Amino acid sequence: MTTSQPILNCRLDELDVDVFHHLGFSTKSFDFKEKFGDIKFVCICGNSNRIHKFAISVAKTAGLELPLKNLAGPHARFVLYKVDHVLFADHGIGIPSTLILMHELTKLLHYAKCKNVLFIRLGTSGGLGVKPGTVVLSNSCVNTKFEPYNELCILGKTVRRPTEVDISAIHELKKLSENLSLKCSVVIGGTMSANDFYEEQARLDGAICTYNKKQKLDYLQSAYDHGIRNMEMEGTAITAHCKLVGHRAILVCVTLVNRLTTDQITLSKEEYESFELLPGILVEEYLKKYDGIIIRH
Amino acid sequence: MTTSQPILNCRLDELDVDVFHHLGFSTKSFDFKEKFGDIKFVCICGNSNRIHKFAISVAKTAGLELPLKNLAGPHARFVLYKVDHVLFADHGIGIPSTLILMHELTKLLHYAKCKNVLFIRLGTSGGLGVKPGTVVLSNSCVNTKFEPYNELCILGKTVRRPTEVDISAIHELKKLSENLSLKCSVVIGGTMSANDFYEEQARLDGAICTYNKKQKLDYLQSAYDHGIRNMEMEGTAITAHCKLVGHRAILVCVTLVNRLTTDQITLSKEEYESFELLPGILVEEYLKKYDGIIIRH
Repeated sequence: MTTSQPILNCRLDELDVDVFHHLGFSTKSFDFKEKFGDIKFVCICGNSNRIHKFAISVAKTAGLELPLKNLAGPHARFVLYKVDHVLFADHGIGIPSTLILMHELTKLLHYAKCKNVLFIRLGTSGGLGVKPGTVVLSNSCVNTKFEPYNELCILGKTVRRPTEVDISAIHELKKLSENLSLKCSVVIGGTMSANDFYEEQARLDGAICTYNKKQKLDYLQSAYDHGIRNMEMEGTAITAHCKLVGHRAILVCVTLVNRLTTDQITLSKEEYESFELLPGILVEEYLKKYDGIIIRH
Repeated sequence: MTTSQPILNCRLDELDVDVFHHLGFSTKSFDFKEKFGDIKFVCICGNSNRIHKFAISVAKTAGLELPLKNLAGPHARFVLYKVDHVLFADHGIGIPSTLILMHELTKLLHYAKCKNVLFIRLGTSGGLGVKPGTVVLSNSCVNTKFEPYNELCILGKTVRRPTEVDISAIHELKKLSENLSLKCSVVIGGTMSANDFYEEQARLDGAICTYNKKQKLDYLQSAYDHGIRNMEMEGTAITAHCKLVGHRAILVCVTLVNRLTTDQITLSKEEYESFELLPGILVEEYLKKYDGIIIRH
């Protein structure tokens, strides 16, 4: 998809040892090519328990024995599991935390000599004009100014990096969803990534709120008019980072609330637990179809 | 310290129920005034295990029975403990995650009618010109442009909020440290908060690196010349949020590496484990002295 040459830090190959501070291992811990050389997909989500549950579900489908070993080291800030050609990790909440994971995972893939890997974020999100429990397959990812960029400040200077989603994978997922009897809507739409849950997402129920209800709704309506159907906190970082380093990325997020109606997430425990499984049900089908996992019988 | 009137969202008192989505409870879960009305201090750090260990240590000092109950609900993204007049919580990595916690904790304190609470971040950080294992007590907190602001994008417009640290608390901690036989240096200095661990902190060992070693060192030296002694990823959000809502904040972070020398954190397990305890040893003394906890004998 991407035509420009991937940028990867050429200094990495000069390092005697590279310490992955947040994954808790180093390039001396194991043979990366042997351990990770067959990776084609990376599934990530915000929460370590949720990604663990998903990895277990995929491992069961593949007919593998449990428990799954967490490959991250003892002082790691993230978890890491592997099932056949798929890695699973949690990225925490927000772009800064997610960027750390992206740097460390893309270094891992570099040392393992894996190219053109598909990163799949399975997330929860706030919906715009869609019913809670809708899965949004992102066809674009923008910041809170509705621009398709992730912004960093490098050596004190602002740098903007364009986001890019793998549209063909999105259309494949949409087609797959039509064959599954999912008890939810699956829509293709834009995703907005914010650096805060309350004020940057125009909620009226934060500790601080400097705008009124009309201003909030005008902003959210404007987002809707830009094609945005859900809001979360990591997408721009993932899609911009992947584009730059020569991998691909998609976002598959379920909505927990329709923000044009309310700010508060008031799902029952049962609704919440069934909604958060939806992206995984769809992505697991995709992994099966595209040989992410080997089905053992 | 702060002379301006605190800004708090006046709509909160009109809500029938307020759902704390990331703490996993609501205003109907318990009587906030009764449960939290005596809070004077809030201790926060990035990692749920680390804050749990610290809360246990403080509870033992107070002579309380263990285990400590996690007050956060079943689907919470953070943990929450209480020991006497002190709350303990984890904020994850980075400003967006931390802001969520700050909004939810300051709403909690509002419903509990607690005023002028001291927020204490106990963190790990990268040092500038100080030996690994040094505790930095922040006398200022700046962004990666060396400006004392936290920046948000609200309704699509950039908003800058000034940071403020409680300098008198910092000097008290420094004095206390001189009476303790800590096996480390404790320095007062500036703290820089970045939105990334790799590129925004001028590391040469990220997956992407668009500058050379000289440019990196020029930037870090310039930070040093601005009085900055350590770099982390949350301080500006905490100190700006507290200033605005009428609480106070301090940052007590240990350094794990001297970034003027190297980028990689290569501490042994033992060094890492002893370093990460240092902020807690100092803060526990402070909590004892300022009646954060009741010593039962």
